[in-house]
Amino acid sequence: MNVRVNGKSRHYRTVTFDADKNALMLIEQRLLPHQFKIVGTRNFHETAAAIKDMIVRGAGAIGATAAYGLAQGARAFHGNDLRKFAKHIDTVYQTLKAARPTAVDPVNAMNDVRRHMSRGETVEEQQALALASAEEFANEDVAHCRAIGEHGSKLVRNGMRVLTHCNAGWLAFVDIGSATAPIYAAHAAGKKFHVFCDETRPRCQGATLTAWELAQEGVSHQVISDNAAGHLMQRGEIDMVIVGSDRTLGRTGEVANKIGTYTKAVLAKRHGIPFYVAIPLSTIDWNLRKGRDIPIEERSETEILGAWGIDSSSKIRNPKSRYVRIANPTSGARNPGFDVTPAELITGIITPAGIFKPQDLWKHRGKLGA
Amino acid sequence: MNVRVNGKSRHYRTVTFDADKNALMLIEQRLLPHQFKIVGTRNFHETAAAIKDMIVRGAGAIGATAAYGLAQGARAFHGNDLRKFAKHIDTVYQTLKAARPTAVDPVNAMNDVRRHMSRGETVEEQQALALASAEEFANEDVAHCRAIGEHGSKLVRNGMRVLTHCNAGWLAFVDIGSATAPIYAAHAAGKKFHVFCDETRPRCQGATLTAWELAQEGVSHQVISDNAAGHLMQRGEIDMVIVGSDRTLGRTGEVANKIGTYTKAVLAKRHGIPFYVAIPLSTIDWNLRKGRDIPIEERSETEILGAWGIDSSSKIRNPKSRYVRIANPTSGARNPGFDVTPAELITGIITPAGIFKPQDLWKHRGKLGA
Repeated sequence: MNVRVNGKSRHYRTVTFDADKNALMLIEQRLLPHQFKIVGTRNFHETAAAIKDMIVRGAGAIGATAAYGLAQGARAFHGNDLRKFAKHIDTVYQTLKAARPTAVDPVNAMNDVRRHMSRGETVEEQQALALASAEEFANEDVAHCRAIGEHGSKLVRNGMRVLTHCNAGWLAFVDIGSATAPIYAAHAAGKKFHVFCDETRPRCQGATLTAWELAQEGVSHQVISDNAAGHLMQRGEIDMVIVGSDRTLGRTGEVANKIGTYTKAVLAKRHGIPFYVAIPLSTIDWNLRKGRDIPIEERSETEILGAWGIDSSSKIRNPKSRYVRIANPTSGARNPGFDVTPAELITGIITPAGIFKPQDLWKHRGKLGA
Repeated sequence: MNVRVNGKSRHYRTVTFDADKNALMLIEQRLLPHQFKIVGTRNFHETAAAIKDMIVRGAGAIGATAAYGLAQGARAFHGNDLRKFAKHIDTVYQTLKAARPTAVDPVNAMNDVRRHMSRGETVEEQQALALASAEEFANEDVAHCRAIGEHGSKLVRNGMRVLTHCNAGWLAFVDIGSATAPIYAAHAAGKKFHVFCDETRPRCQGATLTAWELAQEGVSHQVISDNAAGHLMQRGEIDMVIVGSDRTLGRTGEVANKIGTYTKAVLAKRHGIPFYVAIPLSTIDWNLRKGRDIPIEERSETEILGAWGIDSSSKIRNPKSRYVRIANPTSGARNPGFDVTPAELITGIITPAGIFKPQDLWKHRGKLGA
């Protein structure tokens, strides 16, 4: 999407590949929203470090980064020996996989690249196929998000007030995003509406990343505390909710997403406000039978006991955000990172293949890549 | 309640009066939880400034501070001229009232003191009555909170996990608190239970003040993000909710309290978890007929766009917390400070006169000081 740099708006993807330099170009997401910077990774070790250190984050974005990283590693190999090359590729694969060991997207993306590579008969052919399929993977990610936007934008009407939670925006993908795709498509179509961004404690991805994205695109929006949506719904000031998903159960329609999503779904149900979840097909889990069995990561207490920010008085042009402690220093915290929203609270799942009732995903699994 | 100072636990009230020095002694609440300090106000101007600058905050605490402040002002008068004295008292009253112009507690407290003073026939008698009635006001605040604790502690059973929101603790009163009163009484009775404190963005009074209070008393507790309670309820990890109230409608049982309270009530209802509101009688509004008519203060964007904390690496012994900006710098915010919870979501209202169904307050208005 667009980023204003030196007063001009320019289009960026979160991840691109510079074939001449054999380098990935990544938006340094840890500096946002306070600083916009592109960093290059010169080899697959640096690319793995960028995933590990969360320079790049978000399912689609780390998938594409791993795909490009595998191509980058492949292209750095010198020689014609296919056996040595295969061993090298294995090292690259394992290095990139180990960068975010619980994430499924890098693995799926790299398996995809490997499958394409295997059709090549020489090292050179395989190297070329690696890059071509990584590019294809990234382009498909964009195409899927665009399709989500096309289906979802029909739901966004003039004058609406739309609530979103966390960041399922273009920064989490290669471009466009999932929950934000209907918003950007409706905005591009000239519709006028307003977005409320839940700040999304503890890491505040709504206040930092989603708000930054919307500001760059010129979409009317305001940040609210996670406590405020209930009141706004009660007063009739929210017309629709759109969120993303980390994992959607194809058999039950349950959605695991950032902590607080379930609460918003409960509130939306009470107030008769439509609650949509926008997802690329890759997040659908066709195997798991019960949302209750989705493991909920318990994250660090540090996130709850403080926050990351910058000095509001800072004279430094591009300040780095840093941690301040907020809570009582002798208190501990609980920090579940995700929650599970049952299908009965979800109005529809917006996918690249169309909008479905969550209970109907299984019935349509043929269309949905099961 | 108790505060550990230099390794020893000592009892404090938020407000006390030093008759020899004609000074109020106040806990400097702006420094909590990072620093515990008592400050003295030497005259009614300083007392008004302490209310205005929020050295002292919370309905009961500012009520008692204003009552003592009026006595302090009265006692500083020299002479026997009753007319001049009355004029002086009026100045003191107006000065203290203007410190928090929308708060009702200082006014009610000072009216109470004035009523008692009027029985005195000389300046000296009125001065003595002023102090005696201010002391009585403060002691009654404590007695009411203690009575809330006695009624409410019966609800707290061994092994329970209790959720609370914001700070309706002893720091908001003279002692004991409202929502915390059942917790402290149950703890004193030797019951074992666990408290989850919502951090309560944007000002985080749960993470700072309530967590500090509970830590000082040795009550088992953890801070959670405002997003987490829904998930914890879903997993069966919360057994009861107790919150305070800024205004309770005697005619309908609706409760206005810190933003996010309504959301917790909706979640509790869905999960069949009892939701209690603990209140001193002074917060009951017997006139207003509709919760919808309670004005909801829209507070500063600054609160939403950042947070107050201290450097976690600070080597300073008693660091002052300061503001850091979190959100995207080109984004704005909405910041409603309160919300209204309807009676149907409230299991019971815990008052000094007993526990009542919210719908029954009006029926029992005789007992409830209407």
